[in-house]
Amino acid sequence: MAASTETLTAERILEVTEEVLRRYGPAKATVVDVARALGVSHGSVYRHFRTKAALREAVTERWLHRTITALEPYAEGDSPADERLTGWLTALFALKRTKAGGDPELMATFQVLIGENSAVVDRHEQHLVDQIAQILASGVRDDVFAAPQQDLATTARAVFHATDRFHNPAHAAEWTSPASEAAFDAVVALVQRALRP
Amino acid sequence: MAASTETLTAERILEVTEEVLRRYGPAKATVVDVARALGVSHGSVYRHFRTKAALREAVTERWLHRTITALEPYAEGDSPADERLTGWLTALFALKRTKAGGDPELMATFQVLIGENSAVVDRHEQHLVDQIAQILASGVRDDVFAAPQQDLATTARAVFHATDRFHNPAHAAEWTSPASEAAFDAVVALVQRALRP
Repeated sequence: MAASTETLTAERILEVTEEVLRRYGPAKATVVDVARALGVSHGSVYRHFRTKAALREAVTERWLHRTITALEPYAEGDSPADERLTGWLTALFALKRTKAGGDPELMATFQVLIGENSAVVDRHEQHLVDQIAQILASGVRDDVFAAPQQDLATTARAVFHATDRFHNPAHAAEWTSPASEAAFDAVVALVQRALRP
Repeated sequence: MAASTETLTAERILEVTEEVLRRYGPAKATVVDVARALGVSHGSVYRHFRTKAALREAVTERWLHRTITALEPYAEGDSPADERLTGWLTALFALKRTKAGGDPELMATFQVLIGENSAVVDRHEQHLVDQIAQILASGVRDDVFAAPQQDLATTARAVFHATDRFHNPAHAAEWTSPASEAAFDAVVALVQRALRP
């Protein structure tokens, strides 16, 4: 059904773009496909996103941002910071495994898009590291964590890197291994010990 | 020049196999190529390695074992265990970067062989983890490290996994980033803090 340009929001375009990407794959999907699926002219899509690259970047950002939103309760909650850190890392690992295992086609699609948009990925990683830093800061305030010897941002990034194996898609093949759960617990225990006062 | 079968050692075959693999690539290299390069019949090669798969496995093992040998001084040295651990991790990162950057063709070849031989890789990882455990054990003995809350083998594997970003070939593309040196230092500092008494 044709949508009038009045009701055509950027969010609606992004929703449909994700569907089109999933259906045609990142190599074949075009702005014309997106316009057709929306029942509008491609000019209407370009009014919201000036180039195909801008549209692809925005849809990638939206996809990545779902992770940030899902992790917010751990970054901002009231429970002790050490528990929130373990919760945050556990939730991130679970989200990534679900994305990789539950919808491998969409995951592969976004791996291509991510490869095109290193700036988007850098911003996303910074978001995740900021959430860790937020947990660390509240932990230091409450004496759950020691004041870090390096600055907080560096320590937060080190925590992110030390747990790479359990969220970086480069390791997705290992996530189905039965040993990965115990390996995760051991690394989290190591990280927690490093932060303890 | 033809080598008589008397002087044809397994080590000599493996040396030449590595050269042949580098030259023809892992998809094309055959036992006949190896025999020809050695100036012997392929039967002479099969007398040492019963199948092509066995030969490929042995050459992979030999390649991986060079890393173990290079790291031995850190695993067994007399200097304080915390210094040896940082030295071991630094040397491993340097070796991997050199392999990836210095001879990308051979690296790519061995990535293919490694994919064929998960048991070899498991044994190699276990070797590396054993070296870390050796450092941790001497550190606990000398009160440089705290007695681990988890058993030593689990902690050693956690240290190996926490530093994955700096030795796992899945991350090779990131190793040339100017930020990777500082990222490495921050993760090592985090790990050292986790082990301190």
